[in-house]
Formats: sequence, structure tokens, C-alpha cells
Amino acid sequence: MTRAEILALLESVASGTLAPSEVLAQLDAPLETDLEFAVVDHHRRARLGLPEVIFGEGKAPAQVVAIAAAILARGQNVLATRVGSEARAALASTYPKAIIGAVGRTVRIEAAPPSVQADFRAAIVCAGTTDLPVVEECSETLRAAGIEHDRLTDVGIAGIHRLFSRLPVLERADAIVVVAGMEGALPSVVGGLVAAPIVAVPTSVGYGAGAAGFAALLGMLTSCASGITVCNIDNGFGAAVAVHRIARARSRRPA
Amino acid sequence: MTRAEILALLESVASGTLAPSEVLAQLDAPLETDLEFAVVDHHRRARLGLPEVIFGEGKAPAQVVAIAAAILARGQNVLATRVGSEARAALASTYPKAIIGAVGRTVRIEAAPPSVQADFRAAIVCAGTTDLPVVEECSETLRAAGIEHDRLTDVGIAGIHRLFSRLPVLERADAIVVVAGMEGALPSVVGGLVAAPIVAVPTSVGYGAGAAGFAALLGMLTSCASGITVCNIDNGFGAAVAVHRIARARSRRPA
Amino acid sequence: MTRAEILALLESVASGTLAPSEVLAQLDAPLETDLEFAVVDHHRRARLGLPEVIFGEGKAPAQVVAIAAAILARGQNVLATRVGSEARAALASTYPKAIIGAVGRTVRIEAAPPSVQADFRAAIVCAGTTDLPVVEECSETLRAAGIEHDRLTDVGIAGIHRLFSRLPVLERADAIVVVAGMEGALPSVVGGLVAAPIVAVPTSVGYGAGAAGFAALLGMLTSCASGITVCNIDNGFGAAVAVHRIARARSRRPA
Amino acid sequence: MTRAEILALLESVASGTLAPSEVLAQLDAPLETDLEFAVVDHHRRARLGLPEVIFGEGKAPAQVVAIAAAILARGQNVLATRVGSEARAALASTYPKAIIGAVGRTVRIEAAPPSVQADFRAAIVCAGTTDLPVVEECSETLRAAGIEHDRLTDVGIAGIHRLFSRLPVLERADAIVVVAGMEGALPSVVGGLVAAPIVAVPTSVGYGAGAAGFAALLGMLTSCASGITVCNIDNGFGAAVAVHRIARARSRRPA
Amino acid sequence: MTRAEILALLESVASGTLAPSEVLAQLDAPLETDLEFAVVDHHRRARLGLPEVIFGEGKAPAQVVAIAAAILARGQNVLATRVGSEARAALASTYPKAIIGAVGRTVRIEAAPPSVQADFRAAIVCAGTTDLPVVEECSETLRAAGIEHDRLTDVGIAGIHRLFSRLPVLERADAIVVVAGMEGALPSVVGGLVAAPIVAVPTSVGYGAGAAGFAALLGMLTSCASGITVCNIDNGFGAAVAVHRIARARSRRPA
Amino acid sequence: MTRAEILALLESVASGTLAPSEVLAQLDAPLETDLEFAVVDHHRRARLGLPEVIFGEGKAPAQVVAIAAAILARGQNVLATRVGSEARAALASTYPKAIIGAVGRTVRIEAAPPSVQADFRAAIVCAGTTDLPVVEECSETLRAAGIEHDRLTDVGIAGIHRLFSRLPVLERADAIVVVAGMEGALPSVVGGLVAAPIVAVPTSVGYGAGAAGFAALLGMLTSCASGITVCNIDNGFGAAVAVHRIARARSRRPA
Amino acid sequence: MTRAEILALLESVASGTLAPSEVLAQLDAPLETDLEFAVVDHHRRARLGLPEVIFGEGKAPAQVVAIAAAILARGQNVLATRVGSEARAALASTYPKAIIGAVGRTVRIEAAPPSVQADFRAAIVCAGTTDLPVVEECSETLRAAGIEHDRLTDVGIAGIHRLFSRLPVLERADAIVVVAGMEGALPSVVGGLVAAPIVAVPTSVGYGAGAAGFAALLGMLTSCASGITVCNIDNGFGAAVAVHRIARARSRRPA
Amino acid sequence: MTRAEILALLESVASGTLAPSEVLAQLDAPLETDLEFAVVDHHRRARLGLPEVIFGEGKAPAQVVAIAAAILARGQNVLATRVGSEARAALASTYPKAIIGAVGRTVRIEAAPPSVQADFRAAIVCAGTTDLPVVEECSETLRAAGIEHDRLTDVGIAGIHRLFSRLPVLERADAIVVVAGMEGALPSVVGGLVAAPIVAVPTSVGYGAGAAGFAALLGMLTSCASGITVCNIDNGFGAAVAVHRIARARSRRPA
Repeated sequence: MTRAEILALLESVASGTLAPSEVLAQLDAPLETDLEFAVVDHHRRARLGLPEVIFGEGKAPAQVVAIAAAILARGQNVLATRVGSEARAALASTYPKAIIGAVGRTVRIEAAPPSVQADFRAAIVCAGTTDLPVVEECSETLRAAGIEHDRLTDVGIAGIHRLFSRLPVLERADAIVVVAGMEGALPSVVGGLVAAPIVAVPTSVGYGAGAAGFAALLGMLTSCASGITVCNIDNGFGAAVAVHRIARARSRRPA
Repeated sequence: MTRAEILALLESVASGTLAPSEVLAQLDAPLETDLEFAVVDHHRRARLGLPEVIFGEGKAPAQVVAIAAAILARGQNVLATRVGSEARAALASTYPKAIIGAVGRTVRIEAAPPSVQADFRAAIVCAGTTDLPVVEECSETLRAAGIEHDRLTDVGIAGIHRLFSRLPVLERADAIVVVAGMEGALPSVVGGLVAAPIVAVPTSVGYGAGAAGFAALLGMLTSCASGITVCNIDNGFGAAVAVHRIARARSRRPA
Repeated sequence: MTRAEILALLESVASGTLAPSEVLAQLDAPLETDLEFAVVDHHRRARLGLPEVIFGEGKAPAQVVAIAAAILARGQNVLATRVGSEARAALASTYPKAIIGAVGRTVRIEAAPPSVQADFRAAIVCAGTTDLPVVEECSETLRAAGIEHDRLTDVGIAGIHRLFSRLPVLERADAIVVVAGMEGALPSVVGGLVAAPIVAVPTSVGYGAGAAGFAALLGMLTSCASGITVCNIDNGFGAAVAVHRIARARSRRPA
Repeated sequence: MTRAEILALLESVASGTLAPSEVLAQLDAPLETDLEFAVVDHHRRARLGLPEVIFGEGKAPAQVVAIAAAILARGQNVLATRVGSEARAALASTYPKAIIGAVGRTVRIEAAPPSVQADFRAAIVCAGTTDLPVVEECSETLRAAGIEHDRLTDVGIAGIHRLFSRLPVLERADAIVVVAGMEGALPSVVGGLVAAPIVAVPTSVGYGAGAAGFAALLGMLTSCASGITVCNIDNGFGAAVAVHRIARARSRRPA
Repeated sequence: MTRAEILALLESVASGTLAPSEVLAQLDAPLETDLEFAVVDHHRRARLGLPEVIFGEGKAPAQVVAIAAAILARGQNVLATRVGSEARAALASTYPKAIIGAVGRTVRIEAAPPSVQADFRAAIVCAGTTDLPVVEECSETLRAAGIEHDRLTDVGIAGIHRLFSRLPVLERADAIVVVAGMEGALPSVVGGLVAAPIVAVPTSVGYGAGAAGFAALLGMLTSCASGITVCNIDNGFGAAVAVHRIARARSRRPA
Repeated sequence: MTRAEILALLESVASGTLAPSEVLAQLDAPLETDLEFAVVDHHRRARLGLPEVIFGEGKAPAQVVAIAAAILARGQNVLATRVGSEARAALASTYPKAIIGAVGRTVRIEAAPPSVQADFRAAIVCAGTTDLPVVEECSETLRAAGIEHDRLTDVGIAGIHRLFSRLPVLERADAIVVVAGMEGALPSVVGGLVAAPIVAVPTSVGYGAGAAGFAALLGMLTSCASGITVCNIDNGFGAAVAVHRIARARSRRPA
Repeated sequence: MTRAEILALLESVASGTLAPSEVLAQLDAPLETDLEFAVVDHHRRARLGLPEVIFGEGKAPAQVVAIAAAILARGQNVLATRVGSEARAALASTYPKAIIGAVGRTVRIEAAPPSVQADFRAAIVCAGTTDLPVVEECSETLRAAGIEHDRLTDVGIAGIHRLFSRLPVLERADAIVVVAGMEGALPSVVGGLVAAPIVAVPTSVGYGAGAAGFAALLGMLTSCASGITVCNIDNGFGAAVAVHRIARARSRRPA
Repeated sequence: MTRAEILALLESVASGTLAPSEVLAQLDAPLETDLEFAVVDHHRRARLGLPEVIFGEGKAPAQVVAIAAAILARGQNVLATRVGSEARAALASTYPKAIIGAVGRTVRIEAAPPSVQADFRAAIVCAGTTDLPVVEECSETLRAAGIEHDRLTDVGIAGIHRLFSRLPVLERADAIVVVAGMEGALPSVVGGLVAAPIVAVPTSVGYGAGAAGFAALLGMLTSCASGITVCNIDNGFGAAVAVHRIARARSRRPA
């Protein structure tokens, strides 16, 4: 660990982002745990402000549990995404206080409650009921990052008055995640109405020419509303981390 | 020519769609002209209500002029689309009264003015300035079919108030052609606002992930507003013919 | 609700489209029901002439039932499409008079029989037996819209005499939905024979280079018969709504 | 050269396919000419019944001339396809008797007229005028192979009566090449009408969703008329060679 | 039935293609059976030389059985392809003499043994063991068409000596079906060695960049060996019908 | 203009974002200028903090100049992107103080210098020299938005020490635009090193499997570093506006 | 068997690659075993240094066992890849000493232990835990080829320090297989750090725009680090054989 | 520069790879030259054994010359690929001894002749004359790396005897680059015949379904001959560097 990194840790103590005991643990412990099938990156929280997150797809339940154990052993909070029902059950029986998100396929286990990011409020807007699993994954990740947020569900543009009547929620948001499948046009409309950062998430909702979310993805990438940025199809997690990056940059220095 | 076809022709005289002299020419003449490189289908007007249209792309200027001559020889009006500048010049010098559409690359030569379709008014709406060539092709085809129409240009959804302030034009239309590139979301918004038939035309405006109009095409096909139908990319001509089919069906019988 | 909207409602009463009691209910009630996971748009019928339709794919059976209940509570008819067998069973046990379409995966629940659209007759034509689920979805949606229609099944172009011997059915139709998989050539042939509006629906029938319906979709979009419009793959519902838009436009004003 | 190969040559003399002097030249000469940038395969005619053909695309004019010289030096006929205007000019000035096909971009130089394949007549059918370059390439290749053939131009399915009135030409053909762009449906209709071998050639005619011929290619591959086989987009040459293979197989043994 | 069609039938009697009794049945009976969900085309055998074939995919077992019954009722042989295990069982229990092809998913039911096509011998060559289902479908279809054939299995180009040692089988074939997955290169090698008509069938064998057979399909379409024609992915049936067309053309007139 | 909008304008005066004279002009003038071929949206600056930007591609030089005139007439600054050389010349000769960006194909014309966004510093990082046009477009847009920024050029991951030695520039940035073609891996590396918001822009640099930027686009969308967001291929403009949204959100309220 | 081949065998004895008894068996036995559904190529080991490998996908368990038996009957070692659980069980019960690789779906049965390739050490590096099945397939194939190797797991570029701290393993490797899904950027980083041959294997890990491994595949093909070569998606087997080719070439002659 | 790097340089002196004066220059000079538009990586030769290579596409002629100057200033050899004719002329006039490769679009400028890699001989094999530009780029890069090699041109599989008669060239090669367009099958055949490392390069030769080289690319990736590795389309440079990596690994230690 370099001097600069130690300095950064101490500054995190000074600013209240990390507790002294957390820093102490980091100074004492190696930067990673090598589990043979995985190398857990404990330094990530210091670097990026969030612990390493477990991507559950393709991992055996026992692997997921072992990685969770390694993270908790370092006093960090666990967030696991795309966790199948078997692995969810394994985590739930091992860690009774685990918070299971069945719709969004997430699991959170808190060593300590995440500190809330002050003076920042996000919004998640989605076009239809079938986008809810992605919304849930995004919402749980925002919770893990301590970001408060509003949710607007089923306000797609086929009945655009539903969106307009909820404009105040959009206008007070410091960042907006817009989730939509089909033709993925909702971010264009939202982006034309408000000036906040917009993170668009295409979903694999739809069929035929929708091509498993590619129609929405291409639509969002070519949005005529400028300054829209886009995540991978169904990637509610990534959108939340993008919001976390924005919130963190915002709090770094007094404006 | 079967009895039924002759009957249809006579009924066209009765209803005023065709002039007696036109019918006489048809009764006297073969159903097609074989030019060796093309077989001109003179029966098409009786069958579909519009003469055969010359698709200019890939045809030599001399071929375009020869086909036009064959159509005019039968007393029918000429419409040519996707006509390159050389062929446009060839037609203009051969037929001084030809109406040249440089932006939309069309040429019309009228044996007689098309009779106007009564009690029918269409609208063409486009998202941006760069969609104009497609709008022009559509507009000229509607003129060839005798369909009156309004035009709204550059009312894309990034500044959605521009569309809303023009809502009355949409509400009085009996059919609406919506032309848009980029993410192609305009038909979804229009389709959610008014109940008229919507014919959506994706344009090859945009770049990168727009993939030469495929983003707009896929977006329109997967529109969350129901009952939207779609034409090929940049096919303003086809959209106008679709409107012609709707107008013709409407006038067939008293309501 | 604006003056214009109230005026529109009253005109709907005058023209017989809506009953006075229906209008009264609308004047008394909010425009939408917010179910937290869905916002049901009750204004859609006034705007588009059809109530909101439930898209069943990706929705839990309980969600489908709850949305149906919200629609029925406002005196509107329910149409649900792409309803899985579980959700179909849930609706059938909750609403014994529900009309279940197992082949087309639809459910209709009528508060009142839809009023028949006068002087309008559609046709659905399909290329093969395996296109029937899409035909069924289209047919049930036409029924929900009160549109009478004929059906021609298995008249693909490999044995083109089967189509020709049924030409009178096509010729009397005011609008034709053409459903086909494989190379999707049937709309081109139909569109070359009759002048009615043609709505083409590609189906995911076929394999290999058929690419889950994309061969048919591309074929229909590039049809050499002009004025064909196209819906998403397997979207029998959308095609029926497109016909509904045509029928509605037709009846709006005396010809 | 093996005994079997020599025997085959002698049998070719006996059957009249090759002249004795041709066989003598082959017996005396090596099987190939190595030009450093190309290895000309002189054995191909004995093996496949046609000399090696020069694919002109991407070759410098001087390379094309040199390969032609090597083929003529062995007493074989030259056919070059996809020859650019510069290389066509180079061949024409070097070999005054060269037969230049400007539309189809072919060049033929005959050491001796190809012997006509007896009792065999092919047909080339195309959907539109813009398919003519592909038809020309096919036609010139058939001429190089000594195969007599009829041509039907611009008989696409949008005016299907044009095809039906020419049915006798199709019915007398021993093999039919069907050339079409756009949605590529013509082979399906022809294949449903006659029992002859059908070789379908998609063309890059069309735009937008036509995707440079891919719509036609996919349409032909998924044809609902069975037993259609398909060549590469714009490959009129390959289709002609396929017909040559059929003609040759046919003449091999008495029926 | 027109005079020309009756004449054709009588000529079929004269040439021995059809028996007098078969013609009589045709003269007495309608050209098609309308089963509501299917229109069985009984005229197809007279036109194309093979009865209509049942495409089993997406059809309910009861539908498959009903269509088979309609064909048998007219004295024609049944061939069904892509028949799932349930429908195979239904046919087997209804028609005990049905010939079930479990690997190729085919069923044949013979009203009478197909007459063998004289003086014609085909070959089926495949690259690997996993191509066998497609080979089987092709082989059964050839049997239904009365075409004798050899089979070469697992002679892919990674061990090219396996192919060369079997060259005599290829050299005596009047037409060759070449079946291959992965990169689909086998037809190029075979096409460079022998002059017979080559029908290439890509298979969905392979993974990753193989893209469910598209790599093989594209490879075959762009083969550097000229005159190769291609069928849809996994379409062993279509390849056999293409061979049938070649065999039929060959026998039509004395050489 | 609603009361809320007027209030917003007055608050903009209070906060110094807009000058009183600018507000006065807005209060006096309509929200848009209709040029027949374009509807210029003057309200956009109040809504989104940036005036409407001219997208030059596909617009005639005269159209570009006319739109610029309409914007300047309202006292707003002009930014035009993707301006061809002809249109650049037209703007330069009309407005001598126009700032021409030849590499990035931009033009800026300032009514007044943009006010600098306080306490915010961005960075643009690119992988190679050939990415410079996209970097330039991004840089000019940031300048138009008053955002100060650093630039790192040619620090791709093939020589990763070049990036590491410039880490301090990345660490002080409040938002980072990462521009890369080829495999587009640079954002993943940057995103793993620093916590700032990352906006990734794929470029069409590369060839073959790079597929005009699609390899980079897909790579960035599937980045293993979390929280990366992505713009359209070559969309340096959009990335800058996304940074503008972040900067604006940051300055909205005291932290 | 030609003189050259016999000479090659004798030289293999001289160099110790093959034992005399192995050569004797080869001299006595035919080059292949024809199992009707498969032709086992026994000559492959002499030609390429490895026996034929059984590709298990799409083969029935009984077919896999029969091919294994044919290989063992010739005294050669068996390696089977992509073996489903049923076929793995069949092999395990038939050959108790079979080495089953459940994660990588491989089976090895050794007639004799493979001789270790001297002075050669490979490395397998993978980006994440979910890449392990591909790593396992590669590792087992290297074992079958007698190639010693190190393994580094879960060292993806989102936490690039994990890779750097393991640099010595990479630096001592004579060839490196790099396995990665998602954006597939790991080979670019490794290829920029060390000079050894790099064989990159994209995996189907990821979702959405990852497109079943195509994002990683395209990323690796367009890598900005030069000299990277690429295998098919998930093809750990092929990568190992590529390393085997490198190792074999290295040992052929003294340096 | 770390101790390890200095040690490596000194070992390079000891082994003769670098001259003492070269090492001195490196010790004295910074690791990179920052040209503002490019950062030239001088350390690359020490790391990878080849100096940084200039990728000419998209670079202005003046940029190419400036980078070349920076490399030569450090006593390293220049190789530039994909250099347009203007930039080639600029280099030729600045550096009269520049070796211009017009066909392969390369330029080499030698500070000193590259030392030849002992005991290593490569081969480049290509399928057709039109593949020559890629062969030339590969050949010039091998020359820059001091690797002797043979070339076989126009030995594609349509006349496979041309390849077999040149087998000895393949058999003596330590590594083989196989270049092919169209269906890209040549590497499969070569890979089945010899055991050397095979680097396959697809070319954009072909048309239609060839899809600018994608058919060849997919074919090579799915080759049934195992252990083939693949480079990007038209990437002759990358293939040569892959061979360089193999040659370098081979010479690292005595076998």
C-alpha cells in the first residue's frame, strides 16, 4: 500500500466516509482473498466507494456463499446480483438477516447499514410492469450505496399524460434512471423535459423485432435527446453504480 | 380481358374515377407493353387505382424515359421515384411539363391532373430537417394519388411541446404518415395521442448504432403504441400508397 | 379534463360511439388507476376507441387479474394477449364468463358486447396451419373491436391456385391482414391483386435462415407490391388494432 | 496424369466433347501455369467440363490479361466475370475478337465456339429491370457452356399475370434460373408452378431492410416451395455453372 | 380443371409417370381438401411429381394425423418431416405400417411403393456424426421419391484422406447432397473434385461463432468452387426435393 | 409561457445563469421559430441549460446558416456539429468570428462567452491518434457548455504504462469521457482505477470485425468495470452533454 | 501407406515421440475404423501429434462409447470434450479409470500416460469465476497433450492490480491462453505486457449486448495489442491444441 | 526504469538481441515521446521484441511522418501499415531509403537491418490472387521482424491438387499463415495436413453473403481442424506478429 493510498484512507476517516476501525482492518489485511476459483478484491471500496459485488450468474451456490463470507470477513457489506433461486436459498439459510429480492434476484447482507449520501435524491422511472425486475435490481443497488430515490412505474409513452402528471418527481431528481423495453423511447422524452443526468437501461421486454432488448438498446443509443447515456440490456445494477459515481463526485468538494 | 374487368372499367366511368376515353384506350390496347428490358403493367391502374410507378434506382436514364413514354402512350400519368440527377435531366428535357422534385428525387408527368379524393385529408409529420427527402417523396406520391395533406416538419420528441402545439393538425387527419430517423420514437407518441391510422417510415438519418435506419425500423416495429404499421426504411413512396389504399377503401361504399 | 375532451365525449354520445352512462362514469372518475406495479390508463378508450389492453407476457397471474379488475371496475371490456396458461386459469376462475383463446393465448371479458362497426368487413389470410396462433390473436382482437371478418387459412403461394380460387373473399374486404412465416411472400401476391389496405404480419414459423421470423419480416418490408405495411413478428394483436384504426377513420365522417 | 485421367480424356474424344488436338495439348502440357500471382488450373476442364474462369474483382487489368493469355495458350476458352471497365478495355484491345458484356461486366474470348449441349434448354427469369446485370452474367456464362436458353425479364409477382402468360416458356425448360431482389419471392411462385430444377439468385436490388440482398437471400432459403436451391447474392455466374452441372449430369448416360 | 391440365394428366399416363387409375381419381375428385386449419393440395403431385408433404413443426398431433388421412384418402403416399415424438406416436398407432424415422424425425406411410427413378443414383455425403439427423431426413425423402442413393458419413476435411479414398462413390453419382456444419467447407472440396450437381446443406452443428448454422450457410454460399447451390440450414428435405427435380428433368426426354 | 417557467427564468437571473436582457428577450419572443424546414426550439436553454445545437449532417449549407441566424437572433450561442466543409465555409464567410473546428467538424459562434461552470473539471481520455476527431467534437461541446477539461491522447492499453503515468489527471477529474475504437477496452481500465462518472464513447476506428465501431460499442456496454455508461458510436457531442448534465446537477444545490 | 509416411513413423521412433510397438500397430492396422455413423481417423496422431478427439455434443452416449472403444483398440489415448452427463456416466461405467471433468465436461481415458513436452510451460489466465468451465476444458486438453501449465483465475481488468501482482507467472510462460467473457479485454492487457504467444478464448459469459460471447469475440479480434490470435467462443479445447502446435514446433529442431 | 528492466536490457546485450549502443540510448532516454496527438511507446521493443508500429489509417500524412521521425530518433526501425498513397509519398520523399510496399500499403525504414531469427522458417499460403494485399502486409511485417518465409499464392481448395503438390513447403514451415477470403476453408485443409501452428487470416475478398469477410472469419473460427487460431479480417500484420511471438518463444531457451 502506497503512501498516497494510506493518505486517502485517512482522509476517508476525516470526511466520515469510512470508520477508523474499517481503515485499521484494511491496513492490517491483504488487499485480496484468493479462493482459488475467485480473487476477492477488498481494495475496491477504497478505490471506488463500493465493495466488490457478487455477479451470481454462472456461479455455483457454494461459490456465492464463499465469496460472501470472504467479504463479510473484512467487515464489508455484501451485494449479490443475478442470484438464482438455489443460491438465494443458500445465502438465506447461512445468513438469516440477508435481505432477499426475489423479483430482482438480489441479495444484500449488511455488516453495517450503508451511510446515506446527503443532499442527493435519485429517481427510477420505468415504462411498463414487465420492467420491474430491472427496476428492483437497480433499487436494491442504490440502497446498498445509500442513495435515496423515488420510483415511477408504468409511465410509458403510449399514454404520455401519465408521465406529465408526475413531472415534479423528475424535476427534483439529481439523477434519473430510465428503464424501458420495446422501442425504448422513454429516455428520449424524459431527456427532453429535464436537465438532470439520465442513465437509460434497455430491457429485454418485447418480442420479435425487439430482438431481446436490442431494439431498445439501439433506440436509446441513437436518442434525439442529447446527453443520454446507456447501460447494457437489463443492467439495473450498472445504472445504479453510474448514479453512485455521480453522487460521489457531487459530494467530493463543496460547490 | 374478362367480363368482370370490363364491368369494373365501366363502373369506373360511372363513378367518375376514369374518363370514358381512358376506358376506350384500355379496351383497345394490350394489358402490357414489353420493352425487352421491362414489361410495363398497364392493368395496374384498374386493379389498384394507381398506374405503375417507375422505380428509378439502378435503371439507365434511357430506360426510365422509355418506360415513361410507354405509360404516357396509354394516357396514364407518370410517377418516377428514386430518380438520379441524370435521369431527372433526361425526363425534363424530353417532357418540358415534367414536375421535378430534386429533394425527394421524384418526377411527375401528368397526362391529366389526378382527380382529388373527396372527404379525405392526410398528414405527414417528420421528426427533423434531415428527414425531408423522404417527406418529399411521400408528398409527391400523395399528389399523384390526388390526396390532399398537411405537413409538419421538425417536431421530434426532444422538444415535445412543438408537437403538442400542432395537435389540431393531427386530430383532423384521416391518416398520418410519421417519418423519423434516429431512435424513431415519434410514431409511438403520435399513436398514443390520436386514433387515426398511422403509417410509420423509418429514415436512414443517424449514424453508428443507428445502423442506417435499422434502429428506427426496429423501434417502430416494437412500438408500445398499438396499431402502428411500418414501411421500409426511407420508403416515403410506399407510405403514400398505403394511405392511398386507406383512402380508396374509405370511398368505396357509403358509410 | 379539458373542455375539448369533454366536448369529445359528448360528441361520442351524439354519434353513438359511447353510451351516456359510460361518459358519466368517465366524467366522475380519475383518468387512471395506480396499482403501484401498473398505471391503468382509463382515458385510452376515449382517445383511441379501444380500452387499454393487457400484455400478459412477463406479468404474474395475480398482476393480470388485478389489472383486469381495475378495467372492469370502470365498466370497460378486458382484452388480454400473450397470457400464459397459469394466468388464463386465474382469469377463468375469477371471471367465469371469460372467453379463453387457448391457441392464440388471449382472454376477453366483456362488460358489454362491443358494438359492431357498420359497413366494414375485414379479412385475415394466412399462409399455413402453423400461423394459426397469430391468426387467432388477431381474430380475437378484431372481435373485441367489433369488426366482422372472414378468415382464409393455409393458402400459401406454393400452391397459388388455392389463393386464386378464394379471390372474392379478398375483393370484398375493406382491409386485409396477411399472416405468413417462412419467406413471407403472401402479402406481395395479395397486394398485387387487390387494392384494399394490407397489414402484413410476419410469423416466427420456420427455422434456420428464417431466423425466428426475420426472413419474413424483411421480405414483407421490401415487398415489390407497393403500399404494404408491416407489424412486428407474431403481432396479430397490433395488426387488428391497425385495422381498427382504419375502420374508425372510415366511419368518422360521411363519405 | 493417371491412367484414369488419360482414359477420361480419350473418352471425351470418343464422345465428341473434346477434339483430339485439345487432348494432345493436354497430354503434352503441365496441369497448371504458375504466374507467381496466380496458379492457372488447366486440369479443371477435364474435371468439371469448363475451363477455369477469371474472377475479375480485385485483380489488376494486367493480371487479368496475363491469366487470359495463359488459358488461351492452352487452347481453352476464356470467360472472365466481374471485370471492371479498365480491365475490359485492356482485354478488348489485346484480343479484338473478345465479346464484351458491359451490363453484366463479362468478357468471353473463344479459342473455338463451345459445343452446344444437346437436348437441353434452360430459362432465366427475373423480377425487374434492375436485375439485368445479374441476368447478363448468367446468360454469358451459359453461352460459354454451350447451353441454349430463354429469357423472361420483369415478370415480378406484383403483377403476377405477366408471369402466368409466359408459363409455356417455364414449362419447356429443363432448368430455371430465377433472379430477384427486394423480397425475393419469385422463385417460390415459379417453384410452385413447375417441376424443373430451380436455381434462385438473390440480387442486391432494393434498399433499407433489403440489406444489400440479404432479405432476398433469406427469403429464397426459407421458400415454402420445396426443392429450391440458392446461390450467393448477385451470383449469376454460379447459377449458370449449377445449370451446367445439371445439363452435364443429364447427358452423361442415356436415360 | 382446364383442358391443358387434363391433357397433361393423359400424357402422364402415356409416359408411365401416373397410372390410369390415379388419373381417374384425380379427374373425379376436387383439387384440394379444406380441413379448416389446412388446405391439402392434391394437385401438387401432378404438377411437381411429389404429393404434398406434411411439415410437422408447430402442428398438433391431431392435425398431423388428419392431414395424413386426407392425403391417403386420395391414394397418395404420406411423407411427414420434423414430426415431434408425440405426433410420431400418434401416426404409428393410427397407421401400423408407418415407417418411423426417429433420428431424422420423419414418418412415411405408403399407399403404394414409390416407383424407382431409373438410371439415376444420388449420393449423400456428410462431414460428421452429428450431421446424421439431417442426412436421415434427406435419405427418407429420397426414398419417398424413389431415388436410389449411397451414403458417406463422417468424411469431413480435417482428415481429408477419408474423402479421397471414397472418391468412386462420388464419381458415379448423378447428383450429390453434401451436409456439413461448423465451417461448412466440405461442399467446396467435393465441388472441386467432381462435375455432378452439388446441393449443399448447412447444419446447425457447432457453437459460438457457428451461430446455429449461419457460419456453414455463409461458407457454402461463398464457396470458391463454382456451381454449388445451397438449401436452408438443416433442410435435408429440401435438398432431396432438389435432387428429385434434377432426376425428373433428366428422365423427361430421351437424351 | 406558464408562471412556473417565468419563475424559473427569474431564478436564472437571480443565480446569474442568464442575464436580465436575455430573459427579457425570451419573455418577448415566441418559444420557437418555424423556418418551414426546421422548427428552432428556443426554450431548450431554459429547460436543459444549453441552446439547441445544429446537427449538420444531411442539411444543406443554406439551411445550416438559416438556423444559426435564428438562434443568434434570440441572443443565444450557436454550436453546430458534423458540419461538412461546404457548410463550414458558408458559416465562416457569414460570421467572421465563427470558431471553426476542422478536425472535429464543429462550428461555434458566440453571442457571449459561455459562463464557466465553477468547481468542476472534466477529462477526455482517448486510446489512439485516430480517435482525435471525436475528442475534438467533445472538447468543443464542453467549451460551449463552459466546462474546463484536460485531455489525454493516445494512452491505449497496449502500452498501459502510458495511462498509469497520467493517473493524477484522472484522479482530479469530476467526470471522465473515455474515447476508444478497436476493442474499446480503455473505459474498463479507467473505470476500475477511479470512482468518477465515466462516459464511454466508442469510435468507428478499426476495420473488419470492428464492424464500424460495433466491437467497441458492445465491449463498452459489457464492461466488467461497473457503472460505465455509453454513448453512440463517434458521439463526442453527446458525451459532452452528458458531462454537462452531471456538472449542472452538481451545481444545483449546495452540497 | 506411402514410403514417406513409413519414414516419418520410423523417425518418430528415432526421436522418441512414438514407441516401436505403437509404430508396429500402425503398420499392421488400417488408417481408419468405419463405424457406419463415424469414421475414426487413426492416422491423425502420426500427422498432428494428437489422436482424434471425440466431440461429444450431439452424439448419443452409445456412439461416444463406441468411438472411444475404437480409439483404445488402437492403443491410443481418448479425450472427449463437451460430453453431456449421460455420456460421461456411460464412459465412467465402461472404463473405470476414466478421468471425468464435470466442470469442463471432459473425459480422458489413458492407454498410457502422455509423455511430457520438455522445456515448455504454458499458462491459462481467466478473467472471472464463471469462465472456469472453459479453463477446465483447456486444462484437460493440455494434460492430454503432456503440456505442463500454470493457472490464474479471476484476474480481470476491473481490479487490474490482481493481474500485475501475478506478472512473474505470465513472464515465464512459453505460451498463454487468455480466457474472458464480457468485453473480453484481458488479452489486450496481457498482450501488451509480455511477448509470449497469446491465444485468446472468448466465453459466452455475460448477457444482453454481450450476445452470447460475440462482444468478447469481436473485442479480441480487434485488440489493439498486436499478435493476439483468437479461437471460437468457449473453445478451450481448440486453444489448448493451438498451444500444442506451438510446443511441438518448438521441440522439432534444436534452436 | 526498474532494476529488473535494466537487467533485461543487459541480458539482451549478452544474448546479442540488442547492441550495447542501443541499450545505452534506452537508458539515457525517456520511455515515450509525447507528440500531443500521439504518445510513442519506445519501451515496446524491450517488452515485446518489436518497436511500435504505425497504424496509418485515419492519420494525416504529417502525423505519420512525425511519428516515424520520433521512432528513428531513438534508433529503432519504422514499420507503417495501412498507409494511404499520400502518406506513402510523404514518407518516400522525407526518407529516400524507405521501402514502399504499394500492394500491401506498407512502408519500412530501417535504422539497421533486422537481425534474422535463426532456425525458424515461416510460410504464407493464400487462396487466391485477390488475397495478395494481405499477403504483402504480412510478408513485410515478417521481414521487419527478421523472419524468413516462403510464399504460396493461389492454391485454394477449388483445385486442391495445387495445394497437395506444394506440401513440402508446408511441411518444413515452423509456423504457417493461411490467408483466404470467400468461405475461408483453406486453413481447415492445411490444419488437417500438417502439425505446425496455423494462424488464419480471413480477407474481405468476396461479395454478397461473404459480408466483407465475415463468412471467412466465421468459417475459420469454427474450423473442424483443431488448433487453428484466427486474426481480424485483412489483418496480415497481426498474423505476422503472432508468428513473431511464436518464433521468439522458440528461441528463448535451448530445447
